[in-house]
Amino acid sequence: MNNDSLDNQMDLSIELIKQSKKIYIGSHIQPDGDNIGSILALGLALKKIEKEVFIVKTDEIPSDYTFLPNIDMIKDYDEKDNIIDLFIALDASDLDRLGSKKTMVLKANKVLNIDHHKSNTYFGDVNVVSENSSATGELVYRLIEKMGIELDKDIAACIYTAISTDTGSFMYDSTTYETHEIVAKLLKTGIDKNNININLYQNRSLERTKLFIKALDGLETCFDNKVAIVKVTQELLKESKAKMEDTEGIVSFIRDIAPVEVACLLKEFEKNQIKISVRSKRYIDVSQICEKFNGGGHKRAAGCTIYEDVEKAKELILEEIKESFR
Amino acid sequence: MNNDSLDNQMDLSIELIKQSKKIYIGSHIQPDGDNIGSILALGLALKKIEKEVFIVKTDEIPSDYTFLPNIDMIKDYDEKDNIIDLFIALDASDLDRLGSKKTMVLKANKVLNIDHHKSNTYFGDVNVVSENSSATGELVYRLIEKMGIELDKDIAACIYTAISTDTGSFMYDSTTYETHEIVAKLLKTGIDKNNININLYQNRSLERTKLFIKALDGLETCFDNKVAIVKVTQELLKESKAKMEDTEGIVSFIRDIAPVEVACLLKEFEKNQIKISVRSKRYIDVSQICEKFNGGGHKRAAGCTIYEDVEKAKELILEEIKESFR
Ligand SMILES: [Mn+2]
Ligand SMILES: [Mn+2]
Repeated sequence: MNNDSLDNQMDLSIELIKQSKKIYIGSHIQPDGDNIGSILALGLALKKIEKEVFIVKTDEIPSDYTFLPNIDMIKDYDEKDNIIDLFIALDASDLDRLGSKKTMVLKANKVLNIDHHKSNTYFGDVNVVSENSSATGELVYRLIEKMGIELDKDIAACIYTAISTDTGSFMYDSTTYETHEIVAKLLKTGIDKNNININLYQNRSLERTKLFIKALDGLETCFDNKVAIVKVTQELLKESKAKMEDTEGIVSFIRDIAPVEVACLLKEFEKNQIKISVRSKRYIDVSQICEKFNGGGHKRAAGCTIYEDVEKAKELILEEIKESFR
Repeated sequence: MNNDSLDNQMDLSIELIKQSKKIYIGSHIQPDGDNIGSILALGLALKKIEKEVFIVKTDEIPSDYTFLPNIDMIKDYDEKDNIIDLFIALDASDLDRLGSKKTMVLKANKVLNIDHHKSNTYFGDVNVVSENSSATGELVYRLIEKMGIELDKDIAACIYTAISTDTGSFMYDSTTYETHEIVAKLLKTGIDKNNININLYQNRSLERTKLFIKALDGLETCFDNKVAIVKVTQELLKESKAKMEDTEGIVSFIRDIAPVEVACLLKEFEKNQIKISVRSKRYIDVSQICEKFNGGGHKRAAGCTIYEDVEKAKELILEEIKESFR
């Protein structure tokens, strides 16, 4: 989507919001910082203009983000009880990403789809989709600014969290000069950035740390160390008293090994359900690799699920990774 | 130094530079990214206004930074051969930090001191010292802008490196909205930020990675997990084919465990020479702990050496850490 049509869709979004009273806001399952930061920020902003806002819980909220202001606004709602004038989906590339809350979207009178995933399916009545944005939080910032809603510390803290987590603290290539300009404006509100950063990056649980160490003990590299693989099985989770969400950080750690171009983390959710996170460093488009298994994502970060046991899944994904180097 | 007097000192700096022909630029020993990025950026800028620029090597340049453009401009110069109209010291809190190049400063006709350390001794004829700047690179940016010298990609890449490394990629509390505004302008020049970040943060050698994993296998915590300790012995280095400098990153990794307040890394340089790095998160002043062993540093990052074997050193430092919690 180019800038003109993005601007146009932003204007249409504002119209949709103005016309709506009961507004539901939701994001994808297995929530990350961009997801949670974005829904909270937009929810807080729309409350300021007297909308009836329902921030929908699509999945459990990882403990990493419970420090965020107004986190309790994310709740379970029963759509049967209510009319949904507008459903705003944030950071969700397609309807299935909303999990069981897909039905809410189907029931809503209008749907606004705001996202930065290349693979977005444009499922909304209005679609603000920009793969040039480092995070959905950036698009939420622009929308709030365009609506003339004043930033406050709580909104700014949520957007900061969204952008910081989706850019690896402004490190990923997706970070632009506009990202930094937005963050400058967020910091001007006087948010307690240090507290946010301690919570986001210096707050790894002991269980997660143990899982990290045990998982890395099984690090394998191949193709002249251009590919690195780590597996996290249910057994490993038990040993470390950790949860699958505690695998966060493992895949980027192994990507950051000098010769590695593609890093791969296999997560054994069930015996024959292996979710795979794939990352690359410079040139391999990992979204293409994951699309082979009906997954997707970005060029440098993508995911898929293989319904085989972990060894077979490893074999299958390695074959496709190998193919991608041709 | 308040903003008015900082502005004033900036003007005086520009006067000094204008009046000088042969300009030497140097920074502290054991160079870091802020040091190297700042001297290169200012050197490149002053060459653009036809100054005779000598960027002085005070110490070996770590391999992490050799990717920087024009890194070969940092050279050994013999001051006996030349008149030094102006020596510009960057990121150096006092003259001794310049190591053997202190004599050059003493010999120079004029000295300009640009730094962001609280402990700066104002040793220059003109002193641009601002502890509110996240990096000396920020001050170099301001000076270049104020002189009306156009930024180019090489200068911008060096300043980006300076600021990014001194702020942990814009994460530390020292990062301000002005930091982000400056970085936005740097990115606008079109620098290859991704390449810089890969070199700075995604380039851990396989040996360093192996050392990291092996060292963490020996992670110990105590005092209700408020203290975390890791040892790196000569044996561990051999097993991993790593060097002691490859311990970088270990101590901050263990500080970032949620309950940990003090993190401690014991490095066995020789059987009875244990260098210790201590970090804290929120409230313990680790410089005081290290002073007990004739070391020192900052509140949240300090170091010392204990001339005992590694087990005894561990016992001794733990006693003092325990004391610090009283
Ligand atoms: Mn996102
Ligand atoms: Mn510095």
